[in-house]
Amino acid sequence: MSDPVLAHLLADRTAFVARLAALVACPSVSTDPAYAPGMAEARGWWCARLAALGFRGVREVAAGGHPAVTAHWHGAGSAAPTLLVYGHYDVQPADPVAAWTSPPFALTPRHGRLHGRGVSDDKGPSLLAIETLGAFLAVEGRLPCNVTILLEGEEEVGSATLGRILEANRALFAADAVLSADGARWRADLPTMTIATRGVAALELSVRSAGKDLHSGRYGGVVANAAQALAQLLASLRDSSGEIAVAGFADGAALPDAATRADLARIPFDVAAHDAAIGAPPSGLTTAQFLERLWLRPTLEVNGLWGGYTGPGGKTVIPNLAQAKLSMRLVPGQDPARVVAAVAAHLRRHCPPGVALEITTHRDGSRATEVPGRHPLLLAAEAALEATTGRAPLRVRMGATLPLSDIVQRVLGLHTVMFSFATADEDFHAPDENWRESAIPEGFAAWVALLRRVGGPRRADFAG
Amino acid sequence: MSDPVLAHLLADRTAFVARLAALVACPSVSTDPAYAPGMAEARGWWCARLAALGFRGVREVAAGGHPAVTAHWHGAGSAAPTLLVYGHYDVQPADPVAAWTSPPFALTPRHGRLHGRGVSDDKGPSLLAIETLGAFLAVEGRLPCNVTILLEGEEEVGSATLGRILEANRALFAADAVLSADGARWRADLPTMTIATRGVAALELSVRSAGKDLHSGRYGGVVANAAQALAQLLASLRDSSGEIAVAGFADGAALPDAATRADLARIPFDVAAHDAAIGAPPSGLTTAQFLERLWLRPTLEVNGLWGGYTGPGGKTVIPNLAQAKLSMRLVPGQDPARVVAAVAAHLRRHCPPGVALEITTHRDGSRATEVPGRHPLLLAAEAALEATTGRAPLRVRMGATLPLSDIVQRVLGLHTVMFSFATADEDFHAPDENWRESAIPEGFAAWVALLRRVGGPRRADFAG
Repeated sequence: MSDPVLAHLLADRTAFVARLAALVACPSVSTDPAYAPGMAEARGWWCARLAALGFRGVREVAAGGHPAVTAHWHGAGSAAPTLLVYGHYDVQPADPVAAWTSPPFALTPRHGRLHGRGVSDDKGPSLLAIETLGAFLAVEGRLPCNVTILLEGEEEVGSATLGRILEANRALFAADAVLSADGARWRADLPTMTIATRGVAALELSVRSAGKDLHSGRYGGVVANAAQALAQLLASLRDSSGEIAVAGFADGAALPDAATRADLARIPFDVAAHDAAIGAPPSGLTTAQFLERLWLRPTLEVNGLWGGYTGPGGKTVIPNLAQAKLSMRLVPGQDPARVVAAVAAHLRRHCPPGVALEITTHRDGSRATEVPGRHPLLLAAEAALEATTGRAPLRVRMGATLPLSDIVQRVLGLHTVMFSFATADEDFHAPDENWRESAIPEGFAAWVALLRRVGGPRRADFAG
Repeated sequence: MSDPVLAHLLADRTAFVARLAALVACPSVSTDPAYAPGMAEARGWWCARLAALGFRGVREVAAGGHPAVTAHWHGAGSAAPTLLVYGHYDVQPADPVAAWTSPPFALTPRHGRLHGRGVSDDKGPSLLAIETLGAFLAVEGRLPCNVTILLEGEEEVGSATLGRILEANRALFAADAVLSADGARWRADLPTMTIATRGVAALELSVRSAGKDLHSGRYGGVVANAAQALAQLLASLRDSSGEIAVAGFADGAALPDAATRADLARIPFDVAAHDAAIGAPPSGLTTAQFLERLWLRPTLEVNGLWGGYTGPGGKTVIPNLAQAKLSMRLVPGQDPARVVAAVAAHLRRHCPPGVALEITTHRDGSRATEVPGRHPLLLAAEAALEATTGRAPLRVRMGATLPLSDIVQRVLGLHTVMFSFATADEDFHAPDENWRESAIPEGFAAWVALLRRVGGPRRADFAG
């Protein structure tokens, strides 16, 4: 361990965990307006920390939504590339809180993992990146390349205003590539680089049958049941084999070819163990089928549904209102707005008699993205992982979405390389979200190795 | 107005409303254990009032559930019939509380109606009956017949232990017929006697796909969605024309014949006005079709469903658990246990792959019931209504259930005549439950007239 920056980081590990605990303690749930104070706390924490580490231009930038936090260090000269280093400070709701083993906003170590909402997605991985950059400044007084930092506050709500923030501040965020501390690595036991993400789109629907809930004895048989109608609408989204039955849903979708399927079959992956680990019955899928469904095929999920009486005991009521939230994961070639329109048209076509259907969308979706195989930042990241793990990383894909990748491509014309030290099994978006303690030294080593390599390629290399 | 008992009651009307307000203020929600104190409050109120009115044997009787309140006056002699006068002190949940115009447990007059949970079902109508009996004792020192009072605490939870209470206290509740203050009259503009009720049965189901909620990007496509599976199961309960598609569901059901349908067609009823009044789109049904569906055909309703994320904004989660409550209304010939078994078998047969289905039942159901057309108490009630309204009442049926009628038939061998002064449009089981103020003088007059007529038939007349 001859690298002085890495040595500095490893010596400071206890303070790192204490800082992470302070950041996790800020309940920065972006989707729920009730958590606005937690959002402000998290921004305040980050601004103070970035200033203390020596970054310039620490400020909040907003475009009608939760502000992003930005800062920069541009002292490497105009021949050196500029990286836009990305993370996000917002988190998913902790709901259902009762399902957590320890309080969601109190960082709690257990069995070699740190537990808390956002610890893995994305507070821990973001802090790894920023503290590594800070260590370069502390130990060497400079960074190997120019760096602009962007910590978003709306990643968990589809990066609702990120595009507008970038559009309004193009000069501030001008860069050669995006290096993201978000976008978890696939597995802890295998070095991987994630080269593609699925897109996402979402909508909500409500079904109304009468002016109010009605007694099931006094009205049963002569008025439509909104909960029944909702169930029929949701069921209509699938055919009898369980496949998505929405006309136009997959229009334009690039489906995998035989070569891609063969590549998938060569990836070491135990489907049965995966099913068992999540407590699901055996899916019976082959590795290639499993990975194709997860990475290269679109999905349509009911994220939540509700209507009528849901308390203890019974209530013989006919619900007049039932609602559901739907979201879709998209593959290259699918346009989020067209997919939402196809689902909405399907729902309107299949709406049973006696109820009124209302469909709402709260945010733009994101397209699927893929980073070119010869991108210099991708190659540098692969080299850094090989150097620090001793194994050449495998190129994989991700079933989830980084709206970031789509937005920076569209607004700034930049590709995004994901370099996160979260792992996909860490229950982000679920109770008991956690982060491996071992990710801290692994992440420090890899970030130091990557940044030293980014000093190598000249800015012009990024143009391709 | 020459009847001194009626004059006494009408003079005391303000005090009646004050007493009703005190009773409504007891939040006696039987289905939710959190309301046990409100249940006890309501029992305490009734015991004190019954004793003050001069009834004997005031006490609570229980058989493992919420106690019933009972009292009696048996001074009319053994040749006079004994009526078991029934009401219930429990109420439906007030949920959703936000939908109420005034607080549910604060009696609030508005537009000629008294509003509050339970005011119509069944606190107001029960209090009418008991206060009328009390007025006979106050004015005349006696009742025209022997009376035993039974105020149940579990009507809104399917009269879960009423059968056991009666079985354990057969001597206490021995009578010639049941006269129920529950079982709302059909309409306010037309004197009616309800001669039949539908039965009821219920079950809950839960669908589980994995050990916990999962991220829709990182698992979408390779794990079953419990909410989607629930929707498919509920949708499978209906065929493409919306009819119940459960094998064995209607086994043994007595379907209406042509003569019954012709009777239905002669009942004055405006279907379009009814649809408009409840805020539903026009059903397009004829009066005969409407009444057949409401009175003479079984139903299967989703009373509530829930699963996944239901808060504000979006959450891209795959729910691992989704649940629903179902209830059915039954017609003569259907056995509640066999109907539940048929629905459960259907659900098991239609359960999609990748999820585990669990079905639970919390209570026994009730059979449909019908009172014989020549029953002396029915004839006395019809005569009382004709005398006080000037019109011969129409015989109608009820889509709702009085488990009472089934239980007293089974345990005590008694028929039940419903003599309620609630009306079916008063939103019981829904927000803004209300009761017409005009029901108070109408009810007083009718109860006085009926009780004077029950003094007429000798006990032996009830044997048929």
